[in-house]
Amino acid sequence: MNGAEALIATLVQSGIDLCFANPGTSEMQLVAAIDRVPGMRPVLALDEGVVTGAADGYARMAGKPACTLLHLGPGLANGVSNLHNARKAFSPVINVVGDHATYHLGFDAPLTADIEGIARPVSHWVKTSGSAAELAPDGAQAIAAAGGMPGRVATLIAPADAAWTELPVDYQLPAVQLPPALPLVGAEQIASTVAAIRAARNPMLLLGGEALVGEALMNAGRIAAHCGLRLHAETFNRRIARGAGRLPLVPLPYRGEVALELIADVDLMVLVGSKRPVAFFAYPEKPSVLVPPGCTVHPFAGPADDVPAALAALAQALGATATAPVLQALQLPPAASGRLDATAIAATVARHIPEQGIVVDESITGSLPAQQMSIGSAPHDYVQLCGGSIGNGLPLAVGVALGAPGRKVICLEGDGSAMYTIQSLWTMARERLDVITIIYANRSYAILNFEFDRVGGGAQGPKAHSMLAIGDPAMDFVALARGMGVNGARAETAEELDALLVQMVREPGPHLIEAILG
Amino acid sequence: MNGAEALIATLVQSGIDLCFANPGTSEMQLVAAIDRVPGMRPVLALDEGVVTGAADGYARMAGKPACTLLHLGPGLANGVSNLHNARKAFSPVINVVGDHATYHLGFDAPLTADIEGIARPVSHWVKTSGSAAELAPDGAQAIAAAGGMPGRVATLIAPADAAWTELPVDYQLPAVQLPPALPLVGAEQIASTVAAIRAARNPMLLLGGEALVGEALMNAGRIAAHCGLRLHAETFNRRIARGAGRLPLVPLPYRGEVALELIADVDLMVLVGSKRPVAFFAYPEKPSVLVPPGCTVHPFAGPADDVPAALAALAQALGATATAPVLQALQLPPAASGRLDATAIAATVARHIPEQGIVVDESITGSLPAQQMSIGSAPHDYVQLCGGSIGNGLPLAVGVALGAPGRKVICLEGDGSAMYTIQSLWTMARERLDVITIIYANRSYAILNFEFDRVGGGAQGPKAHSMLAIGDPAMDFVALARGMGVNGARAETAEELDALLVQMVREPGPHLIEAILG
Repeated sequence: MNGAEALIATLVQSGIDLCFANPGTSEMQLVAAIDRVPGMRPVLALDEGVVTGAADGYARMAGKPACTLLHLGPGLANGVSNLHNARKAFSPVINVVGDHATYHLGFDAPLTADIEGIARPVSHWVKTSGSAAELAPDGAQAIAAAGGMPGRVATLIAPADAAWTELPVDYQLPAVQLPPALPLVGAEQIASTVAAIRAARNPMLLLGGEALVGEALMNAGRIAAHCGLRLHAETFNRRIARGAGRLPLVPLPYRGEVALELIADVDLMVLVGSKRPVAFFAYPEKPSVLVPPGCTVHPFAGPADDVPAALAALAQALGATATAPVLQALQLPPAASGRLDATAIAATVARHIPEQGIVVDESITGSLPAQQMSIGSAPHDYVQLCGGSIGNGLPLAVGVALGAPGRKVICLEGDGSAMYTIQSLWTMARERLDVITIIYANRSYAILNFEFDRVGGGAQGPKAHSMLAIGDPAMDFVALARGMGVNGARAETAEELDALLVQMVREPGPHLIEAILG
Repeated sequence: MNGAEALIATLVQSGIDLCFANPGTSEMQLVAAIDRVPGMRPVLALDEGVVTGAADGYARMAGKPACTLLHLGPGLANGVSNLHNARKAFSPVINVVGDHATYHLGFDAPLTADIEGIARPVSHWVKTSGSAAELAPDGAQAIAAAGGMPGRVATLIAPADAAWTELPVDYQLPAVQLPPALPLVGAEQIASTVAAIRAARNPMLLLGGEALVGEALMNAGRIAAHCGLRLHAETFNRRIARGAGRLPLVPLPYRGEVALELIADVDLMVLVGSKRPVAFFAYPEKPSVLVPPGCTVHPFAGPADDVPAALAALAQALGATATAPVLQALQLPPAASGRLDATAIAATVARHIPEQGIVVDESITGSLPAQQMSIGSAPHDYVQLCGGSIGNGLPLAVGVALGAPGRKVICLEGDGSAMYTIQSLWTMARERLDVITIIYANRSYAILNFEFDRVGGGAQGPKAHSMLAIGDPAMDFVALARGMGVNGARAETAEELDALLVQMVREPGPHLIEAILG
C-alpha cells in the first residue's frame, strides 16, 4: 500500500465513496489508487468548474461530504469560483489536489504554483501533506474539517512522492472519521428567543440552511402557526423542501427595496440557520442592510449550528409541538400559451415537476416567477446558487443527480450562466444522469441591463450594449447539447415546451430544451 | 468624470486600447466608462479563462500589455489558471477587477471574497484602490508594474464606489506610463560569457523569451555560426519566429531522458532569456534537472532581462556581427495520405501554413511532430502553452488574432485541452477572427496514458481507464462549433484535411476542423 492508496481507503471507510475528478500527471498515483481500492467511484468532468460545482450539489443532496480530485494549483484555480459557491452554501467538500514531488518544487517547473495560496480564500482548512505516512491521517483531518451537513471546504495537497511512496507492511489506516457534532444552541439562548418572540408585535423567523428541509422546516411551521408569526427564507438557499404538503414559504426578494417593503412592519427578525439579510450589491443611495427601521435582529442559530435541534427545542419551549403547520395545497398554475417569457416557462415547468423532483435554479432573471409558479407543484426540493458566482447551475444539476439517484432533476439555466460550465452536459451524458436542462435563451446577460441602470450607468452606448448582449452570434444550445452527447430540442412556444416536458419527464435523461424567449 | 472614466482614460493614453472582458454588476461603472471614453475596445468572452488566455496571446503578439475586466473574486478565480500561464510566459497583463463598494464589504454579501488573496499567487503586483481619486494613479502604477515585453501580471481591484464617485472638475489624469527599461546585462557579465564560450569544448546557447524573435534570434544565429556552437530553444516558448529564412531551431524535448541524450556532450549551457532546464514533472528514479553531467550552466540573461540588447552585445564582443547565420530553406514535408495520426496532421498543416501565419500549439502529444514537420514551412510564428495548464490554446488563438490582425492563425488543439475553454469559439465568431482551429480528436487525455506508466501507475483497471478516456460519449466538435457560430467540418483522412485547409486558408475564418485520429 502506498500513500495514495491509504488516503483513498481512508476516505472510503469514512463513507466518502464518490470522487469528482479532473486529474493530471501529478494525480496519476491517486487515479491508480482509486482504480485499486474498492468502493470509490470516480466521476470525470472536462473542466474543474464542473468538478467543484457538482461536489457542491452532491453534498447538498447526499448530506455528506463530496470529494474532488484536482490537478495542481491551476486545476484547483479553475474550481475556485464554484468552491466559493460551495462555501457560501455550507457544503462539505474535500479537495484532494496533487502537487509535484516535494524535492521537485524548488526547480520552478512550469506547473509549479502556490497551491495553498490558491486554496486559502475558499477553504476553511488547508494542508500540504509531508509524506506517505501522513497522507491518510491528513485525509482523516480533512474529513473532520469538512464536517457533515452543514459543512466546510477542506483542501488537502498531496505531493506526488507522498502518493507514490510505499508504506510499511504493518501500516494501519487512521480511525474512521464521523462528522463532529454541530454546536447546540444553549438553554439561555432558547429562553431569550422565546421571550423576544412573545414580546414582539410582529415577529418573523428568517430561515436558512438546514431549517429549510425535513422536520426542522415542519417545526418552523408549527412555531409559525402556534405564535402567529411570519416565516421567510433567505433569498438564496442551498435546498428548500417545498410544493404540496410543505410550507408555502416566500424567500426574501432579490431587490432590496422590494424585500424591505415586504417586511416593513416586522419588529423582530429571528435568525434561524440564516444571517442578517444584506443587499447582494451596493448601489448608490440604497441601503446595504435589509432590515426595516425599528426591527430588532435576534440571532438564534447560525448557518453552521445544529439548526434542526435548535428548532425542535424552540418549538418545545413555545409549546408549539402539537400545533399543525399551515401546509401548501397542490395547486398548479394554468397552462401558458404562445410565445415564451420567464413567466410562461415557469408556469409550464411548475405543471411538470414530478413528485420528489429536484429543481436547480440558476435562471437569474427567471428565478422569481419560477419560484412563484411552483409553490403549489408536486413536492420537490429547490436548489439555488448561494455564492452569486454564475456557472454553478449545470454542475449543481450533475451533483444533485448523483447525490439523489432515482429523482428527476430539472435545471433552470440562463444562457449566459450556462456557458461558464457548459462542459457539464458531457458528464450528464457520460453518467446517464436524469436531468432536464432548460436554457432561457434571451441572448443577453439580462440581469446586467437591469443592474446597469441601478448603479447609475446612464444611457447605454453601443460598446456598453455589446458587453451585455450575447446574441451575436446567437448560440445554438441544441447543437451544443448534441456535441456533448445530450438529447436536445428547441421550444419557441409554451405549447412546444409543454409537449417536450411531457415526453422528457417520462424518458430518463439527460435532455436539454433551449427555450427561446420571444 | 468619475473614477472609472479616469482609469479607462489613463489606460487609453498609455496605449492600452483593448480590453478582454466578462463583467458583472460590480463592473457596470467600468463598462459605462469603456462606453464613454473613446479609444478602448471591449472584447467580450463567455468565460474568464478565455479572457485571461486571450490577454496572454494578445500581449505576446502586440508586444504591449493586455488588459482584462473581471467580476470580483470568483470571476478573477476563473481566470487564474490562464494567468498562471501568462505569468510563466512573461506576458504583461493588467487585470481590472471590480469589488463591492468599500462600505458594503463588511456585510459579507454572497459575492464577497478575498480578491487580493485570489490574485496574489499569479500576480507580481496587487492593489485595491481606496477611492475615486486614487483609481487612475493606481492604474498608472499597474501599467508600470506590468511593464512591456517581457512583462508581469498586475491586478488592480476597483471598488464600485471608487468607480462611480465623481472627481473634482479640475482633476488631472496621471502622467502617461511608458514601460520601464529592462535590466541590461553588464560588461563584466558579457566578458565572462565570452570567456566561458571560448574555453568550452562544446558550448550551447539555450534560448528563451525574446531571444526567439527578430534581430535577437538572428544575433543568436550569428554567434552560433561564428563560434560553431549549438542553439536550442526551451521546451515551451511564448513565441518563436521560425520556418524558411529563420533559424532551424530545435527546442529541448519534453521527455527528460530524450533531452539529456540530445545534449549529452554539451559542456557549457549559456542561458539567454531562459532558465536552467528542469523536468516538467518529477518521476520516480528520474532526474529533475535536465543538465548533463559535467556541463556548466552559465546564466547570461534571464527571461526578464533585456535579452535583445544582451545578444547584440554578445555578438559584438565575440566578433560575430558580420557572420551570416545558417538559415532554414523552404522545405515542405511530402503530402500525407490515408487515416490521420499526429504525424499526418502535422505534415498536412505544415504544407499550408501561410507566409506570416501564426501557429498556436496546444496539441500536447501532437506537438513534437507538429514542430518537426513545420520547421521548413513558410515563415511563421509559433506560440505555445508556457505554464502547463491546459485550456490555454483556444484563448491564445483569440488573443494572437487580435494582437496581430491580418495574419492567419492556425490553432492545433487537443480534444481534452479544447474542452476547458471551448467558449473561445464564440468570441472567435463574434470578432470574426481569422483562426483555423484543428481539433486532434483522439478521444483521450492521451498524454496521461503515457504519464500513468511513467509515474509507475502499473496496469490500468477500468476505473483508471475511465478517468483518462473521453470517448464516452465522443464529442462532436463540428456541432460544438456550429453551436457557437463557427464554421466546422470533419476530416478522417489526410486528403480530407488537406482539402479543407486549402479552402479555409483562403477564406477568412473562423473555422474549425475536427481531425479524427484513426
